[in-house]
Amino acid sequence: MITITRFDPGARAKRASDLAGSGWSKDSPATLWIDLEAPTDEELRLLEDPFAFHPLAIEDCLTPEHQPKIEDFGPYLFLIFRGIDFASSEDGFHTTKLAAFLGPNYLVTYHRRPMRSVTAVLAKYAQDETGNLFRGVDYLLYEILDHMVEFYFPVLEKLEEEIERVEHRIFQQDDEGTLDAILQLKRRVLEIKRALAPHRELFGRIARNEFEEITPQTVVFYRDLYDSTYRLAEVADSYRDLLSGTLDAHISMMSQRLNEVMKVLTIFASIMLPLTFIAGVYGMNFDYLPELHWKYGYFAVWGVMIAVAAGLLLFFRRRGWL
Amino acid sequence: MITITRFDPGARAKRASDLAGSGWSKDSPATLWIDLEAPTDEELRLLEDPFAFHPLAIEDCLTPEHQPKIEDFGPYLFLIFRGIDFASSEDGFHTTKLAAFLGPNYLVTYHRRPMRSVTAVLAKYAQDETGNLFRGVDYLLYEILDHMVEFYFPVLEKLEEEIERVEHRIFQQDDEGTLDAILQLKRRVLEIKRALAPHRELFGRIARNEFEEITPQTVVFYRDLYDSTYRLAEVADSYRDLLSGTLDAHISMMSQRLNEVMKVLTIFASIMLPLTFIAGVYGMNFDYLPELHWKYGYFAVWGVMIAVAAGLLLFFRRRGWL
Amino acid sequence: MITITRFDPGARAKRASDLAGSGWSKDSPATLWIDLEAPTDEELRLLEDPFAFHPLAIEDCLTPEHQPKIEDFGPYLFLIFRGIDFASSEDGFHTTKLAAFLGPNYLVTYHRRPMRSVTAVLAKYAQDETGNLFRGVDYLLYEILDHMVEFYFPVLEKLEEEIERVEHRIFQQDDEGTLDAILQLKRRVLEIKRALAPHRELFGRIARNEFEEITPQTVVFYRDLYDSTYRLAEVADSYRDLLSGTLDAHISMMSQRLNEVMKVLTIFASIMLPLTFIAGVYGMNFDYLPELHWKYGYFAVWGVMIAVAAGLLLFFRRRGWL
Amino acid sequence: MITITRFDPGARAKRASDLAGSGWSKDSPATLWIDLEAPTDEELRLLEDPFAFHPLAIEDCLTPEHQPKIEDFGPYLFLIFRGIDFASSEDGFHTTKLAAFLGPNYLVTYHRRPMRSVTAVLAKYAQDETGNLFRGVDYLLYEILDHMVEFYFPVLEKLEEEIERVEHRIFQQDDEGTLDAILQLKRRVLEIKRALAPHRELFGRIARNEFEEITPQTVVFYRDLYDSTYRLAEVADSYRDLLSGTLDAHISMMSQRLNEVMKVLTIFASIMLPLTFIAGVYGMNFDYLPELHWKYGYFAVWGVMIAVAAGLLLFFRRRGWL
Amino acid sequence: MITITRFDPGARAKRASDLAGSGWSKDSPATLWIDLEAPTDEELRLLEDPFAFHPLAIEDCLTPEHQPKIEDFGPYLFLIFRGIDFASSEDGFHTTKLAAFLGPNYLVTYHRRPMRSVTAVLAKYAQDETGNLFRGVDYLLYEILDHMVEFYFPVLEKLEEEIERVEHRIFQQDDEGTLDAILQLKRRVLEIKRALAPHRELFGRIARNEFEEITPQTVVFYRDLYDSTYRLAEVADSYRDLLSGTLDAHISMMSQRLNEVMKVLTIFASIMLPLTFIAGVYGMNFDYLPELHWKYGYFAVWGVMIAVAAGLLLFFRRRGWL
Repeated sequence: MITITRFDPGARAKRASDLAGSGWSKDSPATLWIDLEAPTDEELRLLEDPFAFHPLAIEDCLTPEHQPKIEDFGPYLFLIFRGIDFASSEDGFHTTKLAAFLGPNYLVTYHRRPMRSVTAVLAKYAQDETGNLFRGVDYLLYEILDHMVEFYFPVLEKLEEEIERVEHRIFQQDDEGTLDAILQLKRRVLEIKRALAPHRELFGRIARNEFEEITPQTVVFYRDLYDSTYRLAEVADSYRDLLSGTLDAHISMMSQRLNEVMKVLTIFASIMLPLTFIAGVYGMNFDYLPELHWKYGYFAVWGVMIAVAAGLLLFFRRRGWL
Repeated sequence: MITITRFDPGARAKRASDLAGSGWSKDSPATLWIDLEAPTDEELRLLEDPFAFHPLAIEDCLTPEHQPKIEDFGPYLFLIFRGIDFASSEDGFHTTKLAAFLGPNYLVTYHRRPMRSVTAVLAKYAQDETGNLFRGVDYLLYEILDHMVEFYFPVLEKLEEEIERVEHRIFQQDDEGTLDAILQLKRRVLEIKRALAPHRELFGRIARNEFEEITPQTVVFYRDLYDSTYRLAEVADSYRDLLSGTLDAHISMMSQRLNEVMKVLTIFASIMLPLTFIAGVYGMNFDYLPELHWKYGYFAVWGVMIAVAAGLLLFFRRRGWL
Repeated sequence: MITITRFDPGARAKRASDLAGSGWSKDSPATLWIDLEAPTDEELRLLEDPFAFHPLAIEDCLTPEHQPKIEDFGPYLFLIFRGIDFASSEDGFHTTKLAAFLGPNYLVTYHRRPMRSVTAVLAKYAQDETGNLFRGVDYLLYEILDHMVEFYFPVLEKLEEEIERVEHRIFQQDDEGTLDAILQLKRRVLEIKRALAPHRELFGRIARNEFEEITPQTVVFYRDLYDSTYRLAEVADSYRDLLSGTLDAHISMMSQRLNEVMKVLTIFASIMLPLTFIAGVYGMNFDYLPELHWKYGYFAVWGVMIAVAAGLLLFFRRRGWL
Repeated sequence: MITITRFDPGARAKRASDLAGSGWSKDSPATLWIDLEAPTDEELRLLEDPFAFHPLAIEDCLTPEHQPKIEDFGPYLFLIFRGIDFASSEDGFHTTKLAAFLGPNYLVTYHRRPMRSVTAVLAKYAQDETGNLFRGVDYLLYEILDHMVEFYFPVLEKLEEEIERVEHRIFQQDDEGTLDAILQLKRRVLEIKRALAPHRELFGRIARNEFEEITPQTVVFYRDLYDSTYRLAEVADSYRDLLSGTLDAHISMMSQRLNEVMKVLTIFASIMLPLTFIAGVYGMNFDYLPELHWKYGYFAVWGVMIAVAAGLLLFFRRRGWL
Repeated sequence: MITITRFDPGARAKRASDLAGSGWSKDSPATLWIDLEAPTDEELRLLEDPFAFHPLAIEDCLTPEHQPKIEDFGPYLFLIFRGIDFASSEDGFHTTKLAAFLGPNYLVTYHRRPMRSVTAVLAKYAQDETGNLFRGVDYLLYEILDHMVEFYFPVLEKLEEEIERVEHRIFQQDDEGTLDAILQLKRRVLEIKRALAPHRELFGRIARNEFEEITPQTVVFYRDLYDSTYRLAEVADSYRDLLSGTLDAHISMMSQRLNEVMKVLTIFASIMLPLTFIAGVYGMNFDYLPELHWKYGYFAVWGVMIAVAAGLLLFFRRRGWL
């Protein structure tokens, strides 16, 4: 699908069905934004003609997976980003590649799947009747990226909910799988951090004014993107921290339960062993064992055994084990 | 409730009951501060007329919860902050949104609940008889924010007290809920850090002189706010650290108690088992078991058993377990 | 107590008994340093006349406890710092407030208790016969603060000694109170870090040239104070680290001892239980139990029991438990 | 092996079989790249003549192992880097030294083993028919280093796979060697970090414009190398973090299994000990022990024992141990 | 011992036996380096005459132990550094103080023990026949410090070897002293970090161009020293990290062994206790206990006991404990 928007100074943005229909050429004062969403081979041809982008750039653009990067090809910049979204399935989230060619008066964006960030910016300019909101093609790219970066936040929030759920599991003594869940979450936090890191580097390069395609007025906004990715990384760090705490809590919870188990064992063993010993003494077959012949010997032994048991129970209660 | 304050150079600040009564217009040399605290729909209308703020900004302003942000709308800046306060209930603290429109000679602040920071600044200028303390509308906003940031400190201090209380619980062997309390505190520390982070980013942007509504002389003060939020985040980090230590101490405390439990078990079992064995030996029914027929066999066995028990007690005492 | 020192260019610093006696006025080319140590109300009056400091500043100055801060009151700067010292009692250290008013040609310092930093600087200028060492009133303040910051180091060193002592306790198996001592030390390290943090912020502001009362030549020295507080914070961090290691070592030590306890238990139980079982077998009252009637049955059983015990001892020795 | 490439402005790069054949001299406007891969002594002689590099530099160049460094010898820069690659054997990876002499119009690279980074750059210029891609000798060096730094990423990715494999082992209760594997991986992550660190320092020095051999236009690219090494170090840090989590998970897993072991022991002991005690009671030889003479005494005892066992099983089931 | 070297532009450096012999005066265009190694009182006198260094500086210079520092005395800089070296004994390393006075055309260095850094620089200039390597007195000091900083690396490497040795001990189940060794190493890593920290601060001050005695061309090199100390601190940090991992591995190893111990105990107890119980049952003295009178009762009981033991062994094997 191809979406062509033409921006003329002080006029409402116009949609065109194809490049010819937009009446735009590289020399025209108007600005063009061409969004290619899972385009047909037919539609893709415009990358070669009229734009004549470098074959290497087109190749990178069409590769399904590619690390975020920025490359200056002289008349235009070539950029790759990774947007993020919840996966429909349970394994958390997926990332979507966005490739962009930024020229002096045009922007070509390419993505295989629908991207909410692109949709949102398209909608904004469709609603802007005066055309006053348009601030140049580099700002347009910033707006798309700004949405893209914003969409990282809900993904992080969902992660936080899952961390909370794991914490609850710890207290419900649901050991089966808790540890696995914690490591899984740790891994996902790392994945997000790693998806963010090259963006931060990339926005940093733009913020350092390395590329003249992006005007100094707009560079300030890319600096904000840099800040946002930095903040996102900080949030991810704090999750990592929470997860370490969760793991420690899990270990601590298990120690606590071990203590309980051992107290039960100790109390049982410490009470039963002396009693068994006493019974063993009077099970001996000595010819001369006077107590055996006492009239109330048996009851006296019961008395002793009850006294020993009571004494030990008292001892354990004093220790706070009961 | 609406509170209108008019600042004229070198004169005492004047309160006005409504906008018309203040005699102020956008072109007047005087400066106006309009504070809207849980305003009526009637009072809110001034956002549209005469101020004509952007509908999107007004919408964000009225949304109950919103992330801190700063946006430049050309003639004015729109800002959202989050103040902090103790909750009346036990769950720690709540945050209050403050929205602000900062123009060249006016400041409009909006908040749903009373805010101590706003009250404090209102009081300051009400007491300033000469009007010398007024340093411009951007400094006015700084003063409100400065109070707001300051109010984070007592919240952190209260958190620290709770951390100390949890530490005491660890030594009082009060396991029930200790772990839960530690994780709860960890979560709260994270919440504060997350409330702070966007402020820091925001103050950073102002400090970088991104907005011309804020004069270079005042930018210095926003730099201080940046420093303060940074320091607050450091304090929060140190709490996170303390809490990790507390968790470790909890685990350590539990190991210590497990050791005690196991020592008791080991001492009991190690003494009783050999004695029981000895008793068992003389409970055997062999036809030829000479000791059984000795005159003092029974007493000799008692002697042996006492010697064994004493020897083991000595052994454990030497090991330092008794 | 009031100590007044008058610095004239190229001349030895002169002590005066009171303000009038110093012959100094705000317009004089000479520089005055007034140190108020736990002053009488009489002596305090000079803050109002002739200095006419702002009532709010005077109030902050006299408050016993106050966070470090710096405030520019136009003709003078008002600053609060916290010096550190060992406490006479055992609870580590206390901090002392130092308030200062820094004007163009005067410095007024206020503190409730004697401060070694002030004493040292007073002594230095008392000994300087040529007056060449005096480099201006802002440098004078720097010198006091420099001493103050230096005094943090011995406090940290004493903390380190205590950390070492706690480590020794861990190896001496002295569990009682070790954990408590570690948490106590952690808390003190945090306190020092927190005492340092606002100073760092404050020195940072001076180093950024925010205050014109402090000349650019002197700002360099405040930058050094910033570095020193930064380094102190790093040392404090390394202690925090050591203490975490100590806690881990404590846990590790306890695991080690638990292992020993459990080995003893396992060896005792594993040897005694089979023997007791064997004795139990021949304690059974079956009508037909052939071994009981063997001539050397009893001795054969002893042989079996000794063989079993020896075999198990060998097994445990092979495992390295003996 | 020696590979000589001559770059003339606007012409295709030419390969020459030896230095004389290239027709290049130090004063010629053309640029020369000489790559020495495990060169013969014959080939090495060109370092002395015509280049006349400093003997110390040549010595460092030929040393098999050397820390990355950069040194300015006036007319030329001397640099040492360390590339990384998977080892054919199992011990992870090895690093290869690359030495380079960067002059105004020449670049001499030396390495003992084939390097993919060098091969890739050679191939690029062999394919560039117009010669437009050549941007100067400092950029040429950048391209080699860029590839070299890129090759660190797959090594890190392989490390990550191994970390995942270790995690799986933890859950498969495969204790033998897990701990050793974790420590091994930790050590390797550290090695990578240490291989990176001097590069970062080195790229930082170039980025600070310390060396005039590298033009300001190219310095920007070295700044990117600095960023990349920084990001690599961050990834390595995140692995370190994952590994700590893995170790904690290992400890946690072992606590979990200890809990299970202890529950089994506790259940067995707590049930058998009371039963044995009961049997012991009726094994006593008291003259007067009434129950022994009851008709159904034996069966009543069995009833009591079964009741006790059932009660205890219920007790343990209620505790969730069964 | 005193070593005097005189540098004349474009000439070989000359050694002189004493100051007079060097023919140098403060006003001469030549540069002088005086190295005092454990000097006699006689030799020390030159600090006062002709150099007339400040008495306080001389005092600091002669103090055996002093924190690294830099002080500007107007015509000259006074600096103190700490070099590092392996100790001959086993306690790791010692540090050696180097004091230096840096004037416009002279450098005086003082140290109590031979320093390899000084020796290396002396040797370099002794071999430099043309005198072209001499780049000024501030660069001379840089060279000494550069060697000094480099010598920290082998000390760190030796530390790493010891960390590896401790790791091996963990797997060899050599508990005695492992914990102590880990804490010892942690402490040494901290010591190195603390020895480095003031140097970093000091080099930072020079790098900020604070001292005019050091020319801007040379400041760049001090910036490299700053980077090196930074990197050294990073390496030290990574060791700290390794040591934490080692401690965790130690704890983990001990849990693992505890698990083994407990499995042995559990298997023994769980098998022997039921058997002992069965034997106990048939040791009861009930008048009516039918099994006792069965012909093959005894053998049937043995059959039951063997079946129980086998069943339990199977149960434990299924659990993977055998």
